[in-house]
Amino acid sequence: MKQVECDVLVIGGGPAGGVTAITAKGYNPEKEVLLIREDKEQLVPCAIPYVFGNILGNTEKDIASCAPVENTGVKTMVGVVDEVDIENKKVYTKDEQISFDKLVLATGSVPFVHPSMGNATDIEGVFTVPKSKKMIDQLKTYVDTKQQVTIVGSGFIGVEIGLEFAKSGKEVTIIDAGGHILNTAFDAELASQAEELAKKAGITLELGNFVDSIKEENGIVTGVSLSGGKVIKSEVVVLATGYKPNTDLAKKAGLKLARYGGIWVDEYMRTRNHDIFAVGDCAARRDFITREPSKIMLASTSVAEARAAGSSLYKLKYIKGFNGTIAIFSTVIMGRSFASAGVTEVQAKMQNFDIITGTFEGMNRHPATIPDAVKQSVKLIAMNHSGRIIGGQIVGGPEVGELINIIGLLIEEKVSIYSLMSLQVATHPLLTAAPTNYPIIKAAEIIIKKMD
Amino acid sequence: MKQVECDVLVIGGGPAGGVTAITAKGYNPEKEVLLIREDKEQLVPCAIPYVFGNILGNTEKDIASCAPVENTGVKTMVGVVDEVDIENKKVYTKDEQISFDKLVLATGSVPFVHPSMGNATDIEGVFTVPKSKKMIDQLKTYVDTKQQVTIVGSGFIGVEIGLEFAKSGKEVTIIDAGGHILNTAFDAELASQAEELAKKAGITLELGNFVDSIKEENGIVTGVSLSGGKVIKSEVVVLATGYKPNTDLAKKAGLKLARYGGIWVDEYMRTRNHDIFAVGDCAARRDFITREPSKIMLASTSVAEARAAGSSLYKLKYIKGFNGTIAIFSTVIMGRSFASAGVTEVQAKMQNFDIITGTFEGMNRHPATIPDAVKQSVKLIAMNHSGRIIGGQIVGGPEVGELINIIGLLIEEKVSIYSLMSLQVATHPLLTAAPTNYPIIKAAEIIIKKMD
Repeated sequence: MKQVECDVLVIGGGPAGGVTAITAKGYNPEKEVLLIREDKEQLVPCAIPYVFGNILGNTEKDIASCAPVENTGVKTMVGVVDEVDIENKKVYTKDEQISFDKLVLATGSVPFVHPSMGNATDIEGVFTVPKSKKMIDQLKTYVDTKQQVTIVGSGFIGVEIGLEFAKSGKEVTIIDAGGHILNTAFDAELASQAEELAKKAGITLELGNFVDSIKEENGIVTGVSLSGGKVIKSEVVVLATGYKPNTDLAKKAGLKLARYGGIWVDEYMRTRNHDIFAVGDCAARRDFITREPSKIMLASTSVAEARAAGSSLYKLKYIKGFNGTIAIFSTVIMGRSFASAGVTEVQAKMQNFDIITGTFEGMNRHPATIPDAVKQSVKLIAMNHSGRIIGGQIVGGPEVGELINIIGLLIEEKVSIYSLMSLQVATHPLLTAAPTNYPIIKAAEIIIKKMD
Repeated sequence: MKQVECDVLVIGGGPAGGVTAITAKGYNPEKEVLLIREDKEQLVPCAIPYVFGNILGNTEKDIASCAPVENTGVKTMVGVVDEVDIENKKVYTKDEQISFDKLVLATGSVPFVHPSMGNATDIEGVFTVPKSKKMIDQLKTYVDTKQQVTIVGSGFIGVEIGLEFAKSGKEVTIIDAGGHILNTAFDAELASQAEELAKKAGITLELGNFVDSIKEENGIVTGVSLSGGKVIKSEVVVLATGYKPNTDLAKKAGLKLARYGGIWVDEYMRTRNHDIFAVGDCAARRDFITREPSKIMLASTSVAEARAAGSSLYKLKYIKGFNGTIAIFSTVIMGRSFASAGVTEVQAKMQNFDIITGTFEGMNRHPATIPDAVKQSVKLIAMNHSGRIIGGQIVGGPEVGELINIIGLLIEEKVSIYSLMSLQVATHPLLTAAPTNYPIIKAAEIIIKKMD
């Protein structure tokens, strides 16, 4: 058995693992940092939907480069870790024994399939959406010659994949038990807009409907049977019902897991053993606002955790650490951009927060006669008493991609709607709303008026 | 003489006057708020350059609607105030005597022409860029039949107008005494990129060159003579050399003016007399970071002041007030977006700030294979010791319009680069940079590394 030594060992080559390794090496150039990953080629996870349509067209265009990691002096190897021996500070692959001083688990997540689905994935034509090039290639090849595609789950991945299939001319149905699509990120009035656009793209929505069973003939999928009895004829079924932390290794090693199955970590991403860290989807998360356990899995959250871990391995560099996920998303549906940050109004009320909301709709350019001006709508959710902003949702043009990050920053920096009254923003006719109608400030103003 | 009575009188119908009136009425619905403006039709000031090219094409498409003001119950009238009698709380127009309880001066700014230019504007073909529909129409009509246009001054207005003329096929020269265009907003390495694009648009740049005199024959302009002796043949000369506070009325009324001629005001936009307020370009400004008097004139700053004034007329509603301008700009040059917030590196050094800068260049979409992905570069300027962010500059795609507002918020909320390490951002292949390469966070990381 080959003996390998390193100071910092990172297991996992996704965004969390890569950024932890880069950050660790940056602060500790004298340390040997080794990253071990299972696949030679790693996909950029959030762009997976776009390999199915003409935006990327194939997985070759969705490969995450290893150069940023390797250029910083991090060593990398391809291999599967079978066992972690915490006591002796060693991990084992089939052929290697790797000793470490600090260990970072960044083993990511795997598709979650509801137990009621049984062994549905054994049926030919039924797929999940793992972050594996090989398996995405298989799905793509299989779908290419098929016409009827049914997607179970209307989260971001389900909707984005559905749109790409629909744009390629396939008959797409999206099934969700909830009453609206994207309902963890948007309140009903925004989700409805997304639904109208999805229908315009040709997608059939079956909402508020449970999947009863997956129908098959001779081991090949034929349809999806809904709780009400309706059967959706399907040549392909994609189960896009979320992901769960990949913690087999951590469990075997005896690490403590938290409520939704993620590895328990503190604000600096340390397990109870301060030589063992966990980052990314395999780590347990709490919501920044509600303080409840969170199932949110996002690459941008993962890399924030990774920077906290990478800078805390030997000394804690920043007091802030990582203080919970703010669930911050964006997507594009038929040319309109949708984004959300923090809690929705529904979530806030469920958690018993005393809130006021304000929604402002204006144009994303000024004056409105600017040729490509489109409508832009911002909803803010603030605490009734302090005015502190705890959530926001936006629909508009491509500027929404960064506009939501302003709301994210307001939430994370605990800014109140009152501070927004003197906020100075750059506005330009060709790039933004008018200074007099800047949507985040106007939505805050509406909340203040409701309070009076 | 007609007698008019009101509680709050706002003089000026630009963004500052309008937003003050709306805010005042919002907080004091029982008060009579009257706004008096000189022109029936008011232009959207920052879109003036776009009436000269094919984006708007004429001033009719650049009219600011009065509806937002009037719909809130604010009364409006057209008229010219000749005199303010502070002691008796009255103002006079030719035909009216208007008595008030609270007065807000929002008289804006007028083009600044350097004294060395003498009476250049009396020459036919020499124009400034006032915010008056009539005068912009005159300039547009005059230029329409001419070919050689010379612009003196390379600030945002000069460059934006120059680009629109160049796109319309005119021969455009821009003259500036400084070594770079847009040099109040950008350091040399970014300004150079803007210059390359301006040249690509066909603009000739004469930088580091003073104007010696404007040449004329029979009272009609023929050229601009530079300090080195060179003469730029010109059928039209546009003096885009900035603006100065329009304070004739305030001066006559005996109000105190500050260093650059603006009306002295405190953080709540009050003059020494707490019944008299001034907002917008006619009010004196201080820089948020340097605390020095500032010449920055921006509609977005004006409306922030207006909200501070409008909410402080009868009771001070928010403790924050308006604590100085952060000079936050954006523009578009040949399809690339440029933006700046806070102080530049040059300004910071001139003011003796102990700073470190960091610049990160990446792509504005991810992976880089996304069809419309373009380069995006962020420069951050932070204090060496505290890490507090005091400035930033960006070049990239249209997302830059809101990305700069994130930097503005970081400056205004006094956020340090350390806080950015755990910042959570929404990232999406079609809308933003990769989570691993989010440019603001990466630039902050570079600064932290330089500090070590």
